[in-house]
Amino acid sequence: MHYKDWVKNEFQKLSQSLGFRYFPGQEIQNRLKRVRDGMKQQGIESLLVIQKMDFYYLSGTTQDGFLFLPLEGKPLLMIKRELERARVESPIHDVVSFKSIRDLPLLIQKHRKKLPRNIGLEFDLLPVRDYFKFQEIFPRITLKDSSSVFREARKIKSTFEIDLIRRAGEIGKKVYEEVREILKEGMTEIELGGLMEAVAKRYGHEGLLRVRSLNYQAYSWHILSGPTGGIVSQSDSPMGGLGLSPAFPVGASLRKMETREPILVDFGICYHGYQADQTRMFSIGRMKKKFIDAYQACCEIHDAALEEVRPGVDCAAIFQKTLRLAKKLGYKDSYLGPPGLQTRFIGHGIGLELNELPFIAQGHSYPLEEGMTVAVEPKIVFPGEGAVGIENTITVTENGYEILTSTEQEIFQV
Amino acid sequence: MHYKDWVKNEFQKLSQSLGFRYFPGQEIQNRLKRVRDGMKQQGIESLLVIQKMDFYYLSGTTQDGFLFLPLEGKPLLMIKRELERARVESPIHDVVSFKSIRDLPLLIQKHRKKLPRNIGLEFDLLPVRDYFKFQEIFPRITLKDSSSVFREARKIKSTFEIDLIRRAGEIGKKVYEEVREILKEGMTEIELGGLMEAVAKRYGHEGLLRVRSLNYQAYSWHILSGPTGGIVSQSDSPMGGLGLSPAFPVGASLRKMETREPILVDFGICYHGYQADQTRMFSIGRMKKKFIDAYQACCEIHDAALEEVRPGVDCAAIFQKTLRLAKKLGYKDSYLGPPGLQTRFIGHGIGLELNELPFIAQGHSYPLEEGMTVAVEPKIVFPGEGAVGIENTITVTENGYEILTSTEQEIFQV
Repeated sequence: MHYKDWVKNEFQKLSQSLGFRYFPGQEIQNRLKRVRDGMKQQGIESLLVIQKMDFYYLSGTTQDGFLFLPLEGKPLLMIKRELERARVESPIHDVVSFKSIRDLPLLIQKHRKKLPRNIGLEFDLLPVRDYFKFQEIFPRITLKDSSSVFREARKIKSTFEIDLIRRAGEIGKKVYEEVREILKEGMTEIELGGLMEAVAKRYGHEGLLRVRSLNYQAYSWHILSGPTGGIVSQSDSPMGGLGLSPAFPVGASLRKMETREPILVDFGICYHGYQADQTRMFSIGRMKKKFIDAYQACCEIHDAALEEVRPGVDCAAIFQKTLRLAKKLGYKDSYLGPPGLQTRFIGHGIGLELNELPFIAQGHSYPLEEGMTVAVEPKIVFPGEGAVGIENTITVTENGYEILTSTEQEIFQV
Repeated sequence: MHYKDWVKNEFQKLSQSLGFRYFPGQEIQNRLKRVRDGMKQQGIESLLVIQKMDFYYLSGTTQDGFLFLPLEGKPLLMIKRELERARVESPIHDVVSFKSIRDLPLLIQKHRKKLPRNIGLEFDLLPVRDYFKFQEIFPRITLKDSSSVFREARKIKSTFEIDLIRRAGEIGKKVYEEVREILKEGMTEIELGGLMEAVAKRYGHEGLLRVRSLNYQAYSWHILSGPTGGIVSQSDSPMGGLGLSPAFPVGASLRKMETREPILVDFGICYHGYQADQTRMFSIGRMKKKFIDAYQACCEIHDAALEEVRPGVDCAAIFQKTLRLAKKLGYKDSYLGPPGLQTRFIGHGIGLELNELPFIAQGHSYPLEEGMTVAVEPKIVFPGEGAVGIENTITVTENGYEILTSTEQEIFQV
């Protein structure tokens, strides 16, 4: 059979029978409007969308290519590989193929009659070499930084997006419940992590947690037991764990988990690109009292933070409230990391990437808004001994919040 | 216990007891020399190493920071998080801490007395925004592109590196052997992929396959059965598969595998950052003759390519030889993809990333050299029906090659 015919006739049927949800046209229209509002504010006449998650956000596909978006008029999806699949996946009407980046000016000119005066590019991630190439192929066009247009547009989630995050949270709940049957004394952290991944993937977890960053890659298997919970590493996190080698120095290690120690399981799920992050505590036999107490403190801090969550409340103020409470509860020197290495956030926006706006953090003085989704994660760390914490992904509603990760919050004791 | 004391006293012991292998000082010295030879050729006076795998290659750690490397004199490792761990992991002597990128000029001046006239940066990945920031903090210094210095230095592997890749290959072999016990009729592709990941991680697989690219992420679970083997997607690969959603449109899907169809398992392993890639075929019951024949053709093409492998042989010439053989064997229109979408490579350099030099590919007319490591992967694709292929990671030796992925090559029939 010819490939093109097969994709046209069979691909959509097969993919939808296997659970693919394509973005509705109206969803894309609403997103384009949000992005264009930001373009207008910043005097950006057109965008060339390159970064994969910005591209997916506006087109519904992650096939290899560029999206050209003028302030007014129709967007143009230019695809290198694979055209027919992009046509099925994206509700955008104008989809063309290209071979080399040098074809772009002509394709845009054909679509628009004339080229824009400026083009916005994602300077926060676009490589310098590509920037120079764009200067060469668009010699009379000003290149502007469009990064904040995307960060601002994407910080408020639609009902459609929240539904995908909720679904990711439900997969996470099933995974946590199955851990009870999996966790055994003498098992290594990474063995548990691998088996949790296997369960999660069976339910559709995509196996990666995207981060907007040149160098940092996230992962699901953040499973830390006893002393590895007390290890700080490269990430801006209260504790990174040991990991498997100096090349991957975070998350689960080959350490065998022991009885009565705290086992912290921070396991995010990615469904259709949308993430839900959550942390729960496990123990083999009854966890030592010191850690049970600290976990209860985390839960109290978590609840106190959520009590504040509603549109209009200042993010930095919520963070400060948790600092005061941690101090009052006796955890001033272990809250969010060991002394000198304590992080200064308890919440990060989450969606297609896990470092989206807003941050419930020191210095982040701006209000929460309806439709924001945030992972809230107070944690307490004792170097050499272990770490405890709880984390839920929530969305800000009209009057408060909804928890999208509804796994039970008791310590999972096996 | 104080965190710093714990790392100094306990961290090295714990990590080494759990299998961490740190880079020996001499290994780093040899690498520095290779990189400096390239700097000299390109007139680069100093490097600021940022990209994570270049940074790991030269420092032995992946903690968050920058490496400053002058053409002559001692390198300076500047660490943001976490300093004590970097000191344990890296054999570099001069290790200092910093808080903001604005501290860099002063730290470098302290180390060197005066600033260099130019600094090399990895323009192939460094974000534009960071480039502008460096222009601002180093106003009188020329910023040059250092990408090719790294690509050239890293294309030849040391005995130490080849040993880590061999170890990754051995983990892969164990994983493939255990699949026999796992694969069952009615299981989905991703279920198998998840369980293979679980086995691999238990042996130390780090769960990610790094690629030097802004937008493309690789993954281990490239498991394609019957028709999904015929699907082309975003990647420059003969077949991408269906994947789990438009956000992750490659690799294993939720399709249930059926009897007698070809099941292509392309499963890479990452050990201490170093990758070994391999592909084998599976079937539930006896695979249909059409696919057995095509698989035998792949093996014949694979063997014919390896027959040419030794220092001095032209990469493009090897690729052309395989094209002629595929045509002779009757697979002109299915070799390396469907017509119009055929890729033009059968081998990619592999090490810390899986798109390293060399490429055994059209247009890549340069000689193989001793110490190169390459994944060789002839594949045949029938749209709507399935794909077959074989892949091994090899290293070029003085007179020929060594296969680093010694899994048996018969079809795994369960």
